[in-house]
Amino acid sequence: MPNTPITYRDAGVNIDAGNEAVSRMKEHIRSTFNPNVLTDVGSFGGMFSLAGIDVYEHPVLVSSMDGVGTKLKIAIAMGKHDTVGSDLVNHCINDILVQGARPLFFLDYFATGKLSPLVASDIVKGLAVACRDVGCVLIGGETAEMPGMYSGDDYDLAGCIVGIVEKSRIITGERVQAGDRVIGLASSGLHTNGFSLARRVLIDTEGGAYSVFDVLPALGKPLGEELLSIHRCYAPSVLPLLQEFDVHGMAHLTGGGFYDNIPRVLPADCSVTVDRRSWTVPPIFNLIQEQGNVADPEMFRTFNMGIGLVLIVPAEEAPLMLQRLNESGEHAYLIGEVHRGVHEVDIV
Amino acid sequence: MPNTPITYRDAGVNIDAGNEAVSRMKEHIRSTFNPNVLTDVGSFGGMFSLAGIDVYEHPVLVSSMDGVGTKLKIAIAMGKHDTVGSDLVNHCINDILVQGARPLFFLDYFATGKLSPLVASDIVKGLAVACRDVGCVLIGGETAEMPGMYSGDDYDLAGCIVGIVEKSRIITGERVQAGDRVIGLASSGLHTNGFSLARRVLIDTEGGAYSVFDVLPALGKPLGEELLSIHRCYAPSVLPLLQEFDVHGMAHLTGGGFYDNIPRVLPADCSVTVDRRSWTVPPIFNLIQEQGNVADPEMFRTFNMGIGLVLIVPAEEAPLMLQRLNESGEHAYLIGEVHRGVHEVDIV
Repeated sequence: MPNTPITYRDAGVNIDAGNEAVSRMKEHIRSTFNPNVLTDVGSFGGMFSLAGIDVYEHPVLVSSMDGVGTKLKIAIAMGKHDTVGSDLVNHCINDILVQGARPLFFLDYFATGKLSPLVASDIVKGLAVACRDVGCVLIGGETAEMPGMYSGDDYDLAGCIVGIVEKSRIITGERVQAGDRVIGLASSGLHTNGFSLARRVLIDTEGGAYSVFDVLPALGKPLGEELLSIHRCYAPSVLPLLQEFDVHGMAHLTGGGFYDNIPRVLPADCSVTVDRRSWTVPPIFNLIQEQGNVADPEMFRTFNMGIGLVLIVPAEEAPLMLQRLNESGEHAYLIGEVHRGVHEVDIV
Repeated sequence: MPNTPITYRDAGVNIDAGNEAVSRMKEHIRSTFNPNVLTDVGSFGGMFSLAGIDVYEHPVLVSSMDGVGTKLKIAIAMGKHDTVGSDLVNHCINDILVQGARPLFFLDYFATGKLSPLVASDIVKGLAVACRDVGCVLIGGETAEMPGMYSGDDYDLAGCIVGIVEKSRIITGERVQAGDRVIGLASSGLHTNGFSLARRVLIDTEGGAYSVFDVLPALGKPLGEELLSIHRCYAPSVLPLLQEFDVHGMAHLTGGGFYDNIPRVLPADCSVTVDRRSWTVPPIFNLIQEQGNVADPEMFRTFNMGIGLVLIVPAEEAPLMLQRLNESGEHAYLIGEVHRGVHEVDIV
């Protein structure tokens, strides 16, 4: 038996730091609350009232779990932690938006080797900002201190969103047909995928040529700042249009890029041709491609290449929808067309 | 520019391994599906129909996010990955059970440095087993390969559960009063908390005396096997009783043990006295306490000490409830009483 008693804190878990973190997070979390929330911060489970659910004839809950990936490594290298939470929330919102759902509530998971209440609070601040922007409630979360699992200042961050849609308004892609037009909405940068490749190619600690603090002429800002650009949320501009237009399919261009995501909403006998000259690929993608000598198909499979969300609409609705999207603050482009084919994406 | 083109795979992300993992997981995931599920594996968001929601007068969704903590380190050391998923699901189920909710659906987040499709599949198998046992659907999840974030075979695992409860049946603890009895339900071991302390004290790689493979006389089995005992799920025995008995409060004894969790469901003017002789503390806790010379209060704040769930009920209902719980397969004990006080737990 050791002479000195061992405590949980000796083993690397600091409950005081945990309590301080929760205390610092509280105001951010509460800033997202609406009258549907029946619990305060710190309950076993977060409670969301479905009062008013009867406006739906057949309500369907749509949920998605996601992470931020190694974009976190850039945030950690920059010591800037108040935007990755927004990345995560916006990523999740877009994932259910493509099925026509609007967000109700969000829960996060934050894990680290040694808990810093300030870092944890910054992360939750970023979550709360993005939640408030779309009226989504940050209803719960878990902060885990796991000594030995994460090294140094490393942490992981994941989140789960739950939204709702009327069953008859679900967008599945099954009505996509030859002749439909493909509209692309500009992304705000890499969003949250492809970072392992981007880091490998660009960042000095991974084998690349630059520090995250280097101001690159092609970007006009520090590389790390460009890489941390917040994942764009398309719900504010797209959700209102779903009543007005007959959207046949939508795809969020995340991991797998154009080639893997667009086919998820195509019928088996349809393909899509994308004209890459229909929008300008932002400089960060060209930089990655040049520095890594990355092949074209690998770029379009790994990155969003400047297009974060794709909408597939009947040809006759495309012009007015493009106009509406641009009016609402998006940069929307007609980037392609659906034709009969073998479930492929051709980028020409 | 490098002569050799760099690919996403060169950067440590193997999309083929990801696809193989999803393929191996599919049958496990689908085995949890029920008619409420409107999507298959691989949709952007998982869809859960609320058809039949009108049996609720005022439905409330109850959600919780949790992780497995460093119990994962034991699973990794043992090379046994098909139980930690059940730990996670059962932990989450208990967290919403204490508010009276029954589970609807679950989503998981699995992150690792180098994706092993076999490990990922084993983990999902464990999730699916626990979900099926309570009729909860595994409706979504994220598998993230994050090179540089996790070392060796390390991985992290988190999950989010969403359940439902009738508003008037929510259990908040606000009706707890002096004279109420405290019933404790036996745990199946450490469940999923206190592992950083347990590992520090017991495991040779952390400064302790034993390998996870050592068969210890006090346990009658390998230490690692004891430590991996699956977190008990109390929903099957407790949920049916919530119609029959007037349960005033329930607490899931997770991180913070007796001292932090029981007060979460006590009114400000109530305290609880727990008689520690009313149940037998299992050998694993005594082993940890002896090996680490851990103080009594630290044990009861860090571990469940053999009691995984606490129910607070009117004195006159306690005997029949104890009987019913024991009949349904629990080991239920009368462990204490509520009295007027300053919101404390006294263990005597």
